[in-house]
Amino acid sequence: MNTEGQMVNAYVAGRGNLSPEDQALVARRAKAMGPAYRLFYETPVHLVRGEGVWLYDKDGNAYLDTYNNVASVGHCHPHVVAATARQSAVFASHTRYLHDTVLDYAEALLATFPSELGHLMMTCTGSEANDLAYRIACAQTGGTGFIVTENAYHGVTHTIAGMSPSLGAGVNLGQHVRIVPAPTSSSDVGAEFARGVQAAIDDLQRHGIKPAALIVDTVFSSDGVFVDPAGFLQPAVAAIRAAGGVFIADEVQPGFGRTGAAMWGFQRHGLIPDMVSLGKPMGNGYPVAGLVIRPEVLAAFGAKARYFNTFGGNAVAAATAMAVLEVVQGEALQDNARVVGAAFAEGLRALAKSYPCLGELRAAGLFLGQDIVTDGAPDAALTGRIVNDLRAARVLISATGPLGHVLKIRPPLVFSQANVDHFLTAFEGVLKRL
Amino acid sequence: MNTEGQMVNAYVAGRGNLSPEDQALVARRAKAMGPAYRLFYETPVHLVRGEGVWLYDKDGNAYLDTYNNVASVGHCHPHVVAATARQSAVFASHTRYLHDTVLDYAEALLATFPSELGHLMMTCTGSEANDLAYRIACAQTGGTGFIVTENAYHGVTHTIAGMSPSLGAGVNLGQHVRIVPAPTSSSDVGAEFARGVQAAIDDLQRHGIKPAALIVDTVFSSDGVFVDPAGFLQPAVAAIRAAGGVFIADEVQPGFGRTGAAMWGFQRHGLIPDMVSLGKPMGNGYPVAGLVIRPEVLAAFGAKARYFNTFGGNAVAAATAMAVLEVVQGEALQDNARVVGAAFAEGLRALAKSYPCLGELRAAGLFLGQDIVTDGAPDAALTGRIVNDLRAARVLISATGPLGHVLKIRPPLVFSQANVDHFLTAFEGVLKRL
Repeated sequence: MNTEGQMVNAYVAGRGNLSPEDQALVARRAKAMGPAYRLFYETPVHLVRGEGVWLYDKDGNAYLDTYNNVASVGHCHPHVVAATARQSAVFASHTRYLHDTVLDYAEALLATFPSELGHLMMTCTGSEANDLAYRIACAQTGGTGFIVTENAYHGVTHTIAGMSPSLGAGVNLGQHVRIVPAPTSSSDVGAEFARGVQAAIDDLQRHGIKPAALIVDTVFSSDGVFVDPAGFLQPAVAAIRAAGGVFIADEVQPGFGRTGAAMWGFQRHGLIPDMVSLGKPMGNGYPVAGLVIRPEVLAAFGAKARYFNTFGGNAVAAATAMAVLEVVQGEALQDNARVVGAAFAEGLRALAKSYPCLGELRAAGLFLGQDIVTDGAPDAALTGRIVNDLRAARVLISATGPLGHVLKIRPPLVFSQANVDHFLTAFEGVLKRL
Repeated sequence: MNTEGQMVNAYVAGRGNLSPEDQALVARRAKAMGPAYRLFYETPVHLVRGEGVWLYDKDGNAYLDTYNNVASVGHCHPHVVAATARQSAVFASHTRYLHDTVLDYAEALLATFPSELGHLMMTCTGSEANDLAYRIACAQTGGTGFIVTENAYHGVTHTIAGMSPSLGAGVNLGQHVRIVPAPTSSSDVGAEFARGVQAAIDDLQRHGIKPAALIVDTVFSSDGVFVDPAGFLQPAVAAIRAAGGVFIADEVQPGFGRTGAAMWGFQRHGLIPDMVSLGKPMGNGYPVAGLVIRPEVLAAFGAKARYFNTFGGNAVAAATAMAVLEVVQGEALQDNARVVGAAFAEGLRALAKSYPCLGELRAAGLFLGQDIVTDGAPDAALTGRIVNDLRAARVLISATGPLGHVLKIRPPLVFSQANVDHFLTAFEGVLKRL
C-alpha cells in the first residue's frame, strides 16, 4: 500500500461522502494550496474545536482523538494556552537579546536528560532539529554517511526528506544515505538489527563515504512500532560508534513521556545518544522543537559555525514549551501513559482472542502498533477499512508501516481508562460489522 | 569584518559592561545552549517587554527598535496577540483535517500577488520555505544548480546554509552552488548583475550541472541593501529562465509592504517570480512562513511527492498570520513605510552634509542601508562603534554587508515621523561624539 509512496489513509479526490460545504472546502484547498497536500480518511473530517482528548466537527459532533501526539497534554490545555497568550502580549523576540525564559526552559528540559547531554539548541520543527543534527554530525565526524531504517520518517527538508524512505519512491534518498531493515519481533532482534547497520557501514565505506550517524526513531513509528525487548538498540549503537559515527535518537514521536517507561524513548534501551531531536509534543501545537547534544559532539560545529533560528527559542516558544513541560510533570503524564497504555494493550489483546484479524500487538505506554491480518498475512485493505469505519464511529486513528497494515494508536497522554473503554467498545463494534 | 564569517555586531565573551545579573545569564546561556549562539552588541541587551516600536529592559528603560523586522506591525500588537490567544484556546491542529482558517488566509494572501502566483504552501520558517523552493525547483527543472549573491543569507537548513555565504567560511557552500557579485550602485547595474548570473550559468554547465534557479533577496539585505534602479533584476531573471532555471524571490525581508512601493519587493522590479518565499514578519513573531508558487512550477513536484509540515498552516498559525495581514492592510502600513521611509532617508541625507562618515545611502521604504566610511573607504570598526554607541543611547540597529560597514535600518512598519526624529537626534548625538 505504501510501497509506491502512496500515503496510508489518504483522502482520494472524488471518493468519500462529503457534504456540499466540505466539497467546496476541498476544492478551495486544491486551488489555493496545490497538489502536494493530503487529507486524512475516505471522507475527511472538518474540525473546528478541540478540548482534552476530544475533537469537534462543525456540527458539534465529538470525536475521540486516539491519534494526535502533538496535542500531547490534551487539545487546548488551559495552562499552555494561558502561557502562550500571556507571553505573546509581553515579549516575543529572539535569542540575540538576553532573556530569561529560554534559559529557564533549557535548564528545566536538560534536567530530564542524563547529565552527559548538556546543550539544547532550539528550532521550530522536528525537521529543522534533525537537519541541524545532520550538520553537527558531519562537522563532528568528518563523514556524511547516514543510516536509517527502511520506512523511516525524519522530516521534510531536502536533506532530511532524503533520509525518509517512507515519503515514497518519488522522493530520492541522498547518495550518502543507506537504509537498513527495520527491527522485527525476533528474539534475536538486537543482533539482527546490528548486522544490518554493520552491513550499511561496510557499504558506505566501500563507496568511500565516511559514516557520520545512525539515526532512528526510538519506537520505529513509521516502520510499524518496534519497541521490545527494551535494550535491543545497544549493539547497533556500538557498531556506528566503532565506525566513527554518532548515534542520533529521534524522539519527536516517543519523547516527553509517551512510552510510559521513561521520559525519553532511548532510556528504555539503556543508552545515551550523542544527539536527541525533539518536536511534535514539545509545544502542544505551538511550533517549537529542539536538539539536545553532548557538548563534546557540538564542539567542532560550534568552533566554525554560528546558529541562529529567527523564531527558534523565542520568548513565546520558550514560555509555551515550559508550560507543556510543567503539565507533563505536574499531571504525571508519563505515569498515566504507562498505566493507561498497559490497560489499552490488555484490552486489545483480549479482543484479539475473538477477532483473528487482530495480529501482533506492539506497545510501549501510549504508543501502540496493532497488526491487521487475514489468515495471518498483512492486510492493508482491511486496515484501511477499520480506520475509516472507526472514523465513521467518531474515533480517530490512522495506519502505518511499510505494508500499511499497522493501526497506529498514539492518543494525547491525558487519555484515561474511560477513553480506553470508549475506544475498545467502538473498535469491537467495527470489528463485529466487518 | 565579516569576511572570515565573524558576525557583524556580535557580543564577544569577556568584553562589554554587563551587570553581575547579566553576566550570570551569559554564563547560563553558554552552559545550556552551547557555543553556536551569538548575542548582539558589545554589551548585550536584556529585554523583557515590547510594545509598538519600543523594547524595554529589566530596569524599565525604553529602547527605540529601529532594527527588528519580525515584529513588523509593532511588538505585541493587540489584534495579533488576541488572534493567537483566541485560536490557541479553540483549535490548533494541522492541515490533514479540513478547516477554514488556513484557506481563508491562503486566499487573502494570494490576493495580494499577481494572479500567476496561484498556490501557497505553509511552513514554519523562512529556511523551510527556501528549502522547499529548492526541492520544487529541482523537480521542475531537472537541475540542481543554484545561483546566489556573494554575501547572501537564505536560511539555516543544511541545503540552504550551503547557499548562504554570509554564514562565513566555516559553512561550506554546496558543490552545485555558484555565487555572483552583488548588485552595485552602478548606472549599469542591471547588465552587470546579469553578466555575473550568466557567467555562473556557464560555469555550472561547464561542470555538467544543470541550472535550477537564481534566488535573491529582492532588497539584497545581507549584501548591503541594493534596491535601485527598480527594475534592474529583469535581465538576470531572463538569463536564468533562458538557461532552463526558475527565479525565486526571497521576500522574507522585503515582503509585506516594507519597501513602501509595493507589497512585495519583486513588484518594484516589474517581474513575476516562479516562486516567492515568505517568513519573518508573516506572523509578527509567531513561527509561520510560506512559499507562493506558480501552479505550473509546482506540478512536477506535486505529481511525485506529498508535503506535510506538522505545524505549518496549523489553525493558530493561520489565524495569527491573518491578523497580521489585516493590520498591514487596515493600518495602511505599506503607505506608512513609503512616507516615513522617505522622511527617514531625507533626514539621513541632511545629516550626511555635516558628517562625512555618512557615505552612500540606499533605501526603499523602511529598509535603509547607510554606508559608513572614513576618507570615502568602508570603515567597519567605525560602524561597529556607531551601532554600540546607539545601543548605549537606547536606539537599536545593527550592521551588515560583506565588509560590515553598512548600517542596517529596518524598524517595525508602524514607525512614525516622531520615531524618525528620535532616531536622527540620537544618531547626530552619536556622530558628534565620535
